[in-house]
Amino acid sequence: MKFKLKYISILCGIVLLASCNTKPKNKIEEPTQNIEAKIDSILPLLTLQEKVDLCHAQSKFSTKGVERLGIPEIWMSDGPHGVRAEISWDSWDYAGWTNDSITAFPALTCLAATFNPELAGEYGFNLGEEARYRKKDVLLGPGVNIYRTPFNGRNFEYLGEDPFLASTLVVPYIKGVQKNGVAACVKHYALNNQEHWRDVVNVEVNDRALHEIYLPAFKAAVQEANVWAIMGAYNKFRGQYTTHHELLTNQILKGDWKYDGVVISDWSSAHSTIEAANNGLDIEMGTGTDGLGFTTENHYSKYFLADPFLEKLKSGELSEAVLNDKVKRVLRLRYRTNLSKNRPLGKANNKEHHEIARKVATEGIVLLKNEDNFFPIKDKTGLTIAVIGENATRSMTAGGGSSELKPKFEISPLEGIKTRYKNATVLHTMGYETGRSEYDVVHPPTLNQDSLKVEAIKLAKKADIVLFVGGLNKSHLQDCEGDDRQQYNLPFGQEELINQIAQVNKNLGFILLTGNAIKMPWLNNVKGLLESWYLGSMAGYAIADVISGDVNPSGKLPFTIPVKIEDNAAHFFGSESYPGIQDSQNDISKNNKPSFTQEYKEGILVGYRWHDTKHITPRYAFGYGLSYTSFNIENINTDNNTYNQNDEITITCDVTNTGDVAGAEVIQVYVGKLKSKIERPLKELKGFAKVNLEKGAKQSVSITVDVSKLKYYNESKSDWDFETGEYQIYVGNASNNISKALKVTIN
Amino acid sequence: MKFKLKYISILCGIVLLASCNTKPKNKIEEPTQNIEAKIDSILPLLTLQEKVDLCHAQSKFSTKGVERLGIPEIWMSDGPHGVRAEISWDSWDYAGWTNDSITAFPALTCLAATFNPELAGEYGFNLGEEARYRKKDVLLGPGVNIYRTPFNGRNFEYLGEDPFLASTLVVPYIKGVQKNGVAACVKHYALNNQEHWRDVVNVEVNDRALHEIYLPAFKAAVQEANVWAIMGAYNKFRGQYTTHHELLTNQILKGDWKYDGVVISDWSSAHSTIEAANNGLDIEMGTGTDGLGFTTENHYSKYFLADPFLEKLKSGELSEAVLNDKVKRVLRLRYRTNLSKNRPLGKANNKEHHEIARKVATEGIVLLKNEDNFFPIKDKTGLTIAVIGENATRSMTAGGGSSELKPKFEISPLEGIKTRYKNATVLHTMGYETGRSEYDVVHPPTLNQDSLKVEAIKLAKKADIVLFVGGLNKSHLQDCEGDDRQQYNLPFGQEELINQIAQVNKNLGFILLTGNAIKMPWLNNVKGLLESWYLGSMAGYAIADVISGDVNPSGKLPFTIPVKIEDNAAHFFGSESYPGIQDSQNDISKNNKPSFTQEYKEGILVGYRWHDTKHITPRYAFGYGLSYTSFNIENINTDNNTYNQNDEITITCDVTNTGDVAGAEVIQVYVGKLKSKIERPLKELKGFAKVNLEKGAKQSVSITVDVSKLKYYNESKSDWDFETGEYQIYVGNASNNISKALKVTIN
Repeated sequence: MKFKLKYISILCGIVLLASCNTKPKNKIEEPTQNIEAKIDSILPLLTLQEKVDLCHAQSKFSTKGVERLGIPEIWMSDGPHGVRAEISWDSWDYAGWTNDSITAFPALTCLAATFNPELAGEYGFNLGEEARYRKKDVLLGPGVNIYRTPFNGRNFEYLGEDPFLASTLVVPYIKGVQKNGVAACVKHYALNNQEHWRDVVNVEVNDRALHEIYLPAFKAAVQEANVWAIMGAYNKFRGQYTTHHELLTNQILKGDWKYDGVVISDWSSAHSTIEAANNGLDIEMGTGTDGLGFTTENHYSKYFLADPFLEKLKSGELSEAVLNDKVKRVLRLRYRTNLSKNRPLGKANNKEHHEIARKVATEGIVLLKNEDNFFPIKDKTGLTIAVIGENATRSMTAGGGSSELKPKFEISPLEGIKTRYKNATVLHTMGYETGRSEYDVVHPPTLNQDSLKVEAIKLAKKADIVLFVGGLNKSHLQDCEGDDRQQYNLPFGQEELINQIAQVNKNLGFILLTGNAIKMPWLNNVKGLLESWYLGSMAGYAIADVISGDVNPSGKLPFTIPVKIEDNAAHFFGSESYPGIQDSQNDISKNNKPSFTQEYKEGILVGYRWHDTKHITPRYAFGYGLSYTSFNIENINTDNNTYNQNDEITITCDVTNTGDVAGAEVIQVYVGKLKSKIERPLKELKGFAKVNLEKGAKQSVSITVDVSKLKYYNESKSDWDFETGEYQIYVGNASNNISKALKVTIN
Repeated sequence: MKFKLKYISILCGIVLLASCNTKPKNKIEEPTQNIEAKIDSILPLLTLQEKVDLCHAQSKFSTKGVERLGIPEIWMSDGPHGVRAEISWDSWDYAGWTNDSITAFPALTCLAATFNPELAGEYGFNLGEEARYRKKDVLLGPGVNIYRTPFNGRNFEYLGEDPFLASTLVVPYIKGVQKNGVAACVKHYALNNQEHWRDVVNVEVNDRALHEIYLPAFKAAVQEANVWAIMGAYNKFRGQYTTHHELLTNQILKGDWKYDGVVISDWSSAHSTIEAANNGLDIEMGTGTDGLGFTTENHYSKYFLADPFLEKLKSGELSEAVLNDKVKRVLRLRYRTNLSKNRPLGKANNKEHHEIARKVATEGIVLLKNEDNFFPIKDKTGLTIAVIGENATRSMTAGGGSSELKPKFEISPLEGIKTRYKNATVLHTMGYETGRSEYDVVHPPTLNQDSLKVEAIKLAKKADIVLFVGGLNKSHLQDCEGDDRQQYNLPFGQEELINQIAQVNKNLGFILLTGNAIKMPWLNNVKGLLESWYLGSMAGYAIADVISGDVNPSGKLPFTIPVKIEDNAAHFFGSESYPGIQDSQNDISKNNKPSFTQEYKEGILVGYRWHDTKHITPRYAFGYGLSYTSFNIENINTDNNTYNQNDEITITCDVTNTGDVAGAEVIQVYVGKLKSKIERPLKELKGFAKVNLEKGAKQSVSITVDVSKLKYYNESKSDWDFETGEYQIYVGNASNNISKALKVTIN
């Protein structure tokens, strides 16, 4: 799918895609002239030691330059949602600087929910500007690991369960970042779909799921966005660590995809000098001595790609050609970033960045339920709103792992609501308390939970409307790097609390802050439900924008919310499929750590593909999201009935805003094969367009799908293959709300 | 004096000035186009708070940018001889980085001793490249405070006792640094001529000495080098702190000299918001809360030019025009440095830098005594050299205060000698031990001094030649920032040790490592004496170059070495003149610190001006330095006998190398007024040229002196003035070795 020209072509003259006021300035272009020649001229000037030094960390987040030649160091920083605070030279402590407060953009699940590629471009560009101002050469994001299970502690950093959606959004994001002369670093390559046991788990998945589900977003990053850096993952795949993987890195990434950028390890994800050298790892970053342990004197020289690499090069066990390929890549990275003469200077915390953060946040919020038009809530004198829940005031940029941020400010939901509702009386109580959150640490609550509950019920009783602001948070075992969630239910007694509140006040809305699906046994007790993600600096304002109706919600779920966890495909097959099972004692690796294996038994049937195909009704379906207005999608047609394999299919329809307010709808095109000889999902997303319409307005929309995108991965041929015959094209505004299905024939 | 075109014009076709292989590349020019317009366009975009934030530190060595507009921060680093190791964000501790080892260049006294402006340009350019590679925008050097007393702990950082010599060398140094898009910051403005009581001493000096002796190097830095930054000093002058001084800063620097760069405080040298604001301080840097104390929460906002400044601006007590002038200057600094599109990227620790460091070192070493051609010493089998003295192995880049460095390597004298003398037997013993040196801390010796002495005598007895490597070091109360020396004699029992060694071995040479004159009661006991300064990374190689004869010494003393301390002008007048005397109790300032006043009673008669005029024979005179060859200076003439006030006087002579080896001689031109109506030094340096000559070669040399440079500062007119009549022009190779005196008349 060619994003800019073909994917979304809007027939009428006005701009339909949501657009912000400020365009990414195309300040920097991929430098092309003579760079390869320059790289070739530098190579013979370098000593073996200098070359090796370019391939590993010198500190937590930097690599050496060649100072005698004026070749700069490379400085990196987390992460996907904003530029992390400065880390100490050689420990994980924060450095204690005061110039590192930044704009926190919404978490990537929210960006995915916007279904808005142009906004993804703005997100990337603005974030890249902050990275550049902070003098970073590589921004360690975005993450595109596929959402396989609601338990994955890191899903909030990723772009949802669908490879087409993730691919479509990651491309403009990367291009946006890289316009600043800052490399995006797409991660984690590959199959890092859970945090639990991430260091020791071996993933088994068939080739078809690998190519159709888990790799497309990486492939798009490489082939469509020309991403300059990619990060390996912690886990193994088919018995080999993914950070230096013969199949994934050598054959697929650098072979088939012709990737010319750098492969960077995750921090201490390398495990072998021979494999790191021969299987395409270019830069080893880490935590301690041997990629596993912790600090000792001169530990960077002990990295797999440091002295041990040098020794094996000297002894001839490893070829210098292998080293030279890495050096060319790290030099190419420099010419694209800090050796680029025309890269801009960046900026941070400016109004535009805050506006983009707010825009992504408001466009990403998903209205899941709106009984009796609970939302929007009009501000008026005499109205009393009780805001209950810890998440109304809790920082959601602190914690969560490496994506943790130090924003210059963070507007809490409560602050946003109070600011917006100037006439109404806004009251607040916590309702429950979960303790302070820090990376990998949960501090136990200090308050009495019973008294908090009593206070909440009291407040709910005297309010006209109750807004419960809860969900998960960024603490360990919630939405946080390093481990997975341990339950599908809402934690911290929230389910009981919601039900009790509902008993005293039926006018109850739930503003859910999560990066994952949760169980909703209390759903009948709430009238309104907003999935509000982790929204960054402007969180509270964005939430107030939506609940007040200043912005009409248009977000769509980028993943399925199953009724119960067993309905999720990964969980359906039991612990062999998630989270894996311990290998027999014979398989315990030499360092005496137990190892684990999991098999992705669901294969290609991830997310809505599973629910659709297996007819398991979800609580909320992929692509679902309500609006304060209503849309009619009609005159749905394809431009032909039969197509050849090189053709494009153009799907057209008319969309009318039939309600009372302006709004935006995402027209979604899914395709399924009828009577397939092979296993197929019922349907798969192959195109979408977001349409902004004033009330009463009508618009023609055209979405183009390359027929070649209907190929499947044929395992017996180890290549993409085509099935002729009848395909069904589904057009709707959610995976479970199809306005029309059209049959086409492919020859 | 116009340096490039007029000052030194060599008549014959070959290059006479010592030149190194690599020229400073003129990569960056002072940006001119539209910068003032750009600055004017930025000014109205800034809030009052943002403007104030540009005027003070945010950390130990950086100031805030305006991140929302993409205006970068400013990062500074010590110091004059190399780029200091990274300092922590908010403490004086080193940050513990491993990428901050650099090339240590020789201390500036050594550069002064080269009498080689071209080499000063190379020094500045190469040092600037290191600063740029280290991402510094401002390099905190060079220092040009006049050498007034041998006791000043910081003389080693300065360019000697003569304003003409300092001016001539500081200009190419600054230009060299700034070609990298890195601002030089000339310091300490002004009259910071001692470290003792520097924070509390008030200097009284007459206008004539101020303008003729203490300010010319600063004036040249501003008017000839267009320096982009200047640093205030700690001390007071005429009762007002020099960092924000109505006369020095407002009237002279920014008024008369039309300086358009920034004035930066020394660290905590500001003392008043009103004075800092109104008397031209642009950027306040510091150590603690109030410029005097130490760290508290948010202490940078309590700086005199922070919140207190903002408050007085808001109240109207201070004018926004005052602020705008500062902001224009700090923005101009950025356009010259980190907003300059074409600044190069810098490099560090490259061969060229090491070679320049070595070249400056070898050219700066001064051969003071060479009885019986003690030097050079030929390497031969069977020769035993005893190297005695702690300075043979002691690091001289560690300690000394803010100029302390962390070089990638530092070749000790012993290592240099051992490397060069491959055939001879080189033995070593310490002779004395002084303890570990750190900034402001002296760790007491741990070894037994008597046993060290016994060992030294034993070694001296069995050697053919003894090289005593001693002198001062970088510990507190030696050559070190923060306080002055307390004795003129050599410390640590060295005098006794030398005399005892001489009793057992007459073949005794002294390699003296100091940045200051010392008493030499042992002089008759040594045959050879080299003033070898603090020579940085390549120290040992440079020393070996000279003692072996690989390089023929050509350094000349940039200051006088008096026989005894009382012969020095500052000391002649007692404690009122140096170090000052405590003010009466009534004058103790409000913070209860005692204050001190000193009067520079010698006026203009500093250094050789004093000795010449008062006929006090020094031990070694200014401009003095021997060679392994001999030179004949003849045919000394001026191009006319009478001149008008706008003329130039061209002095020509023929110089012949009459000895057996190639060498370099510094032809020095001094001028004195005969029968002056006012007090005058006998003579003053007004021109010089360094001539490289093969043995037997003869060269014509031309040195031009602008007649206008013969003006004196007329205190009654508060302006430079001219005295017509007869002047004497002295041409020689030292201030006390004049080959010919010529009479000219100025109309």
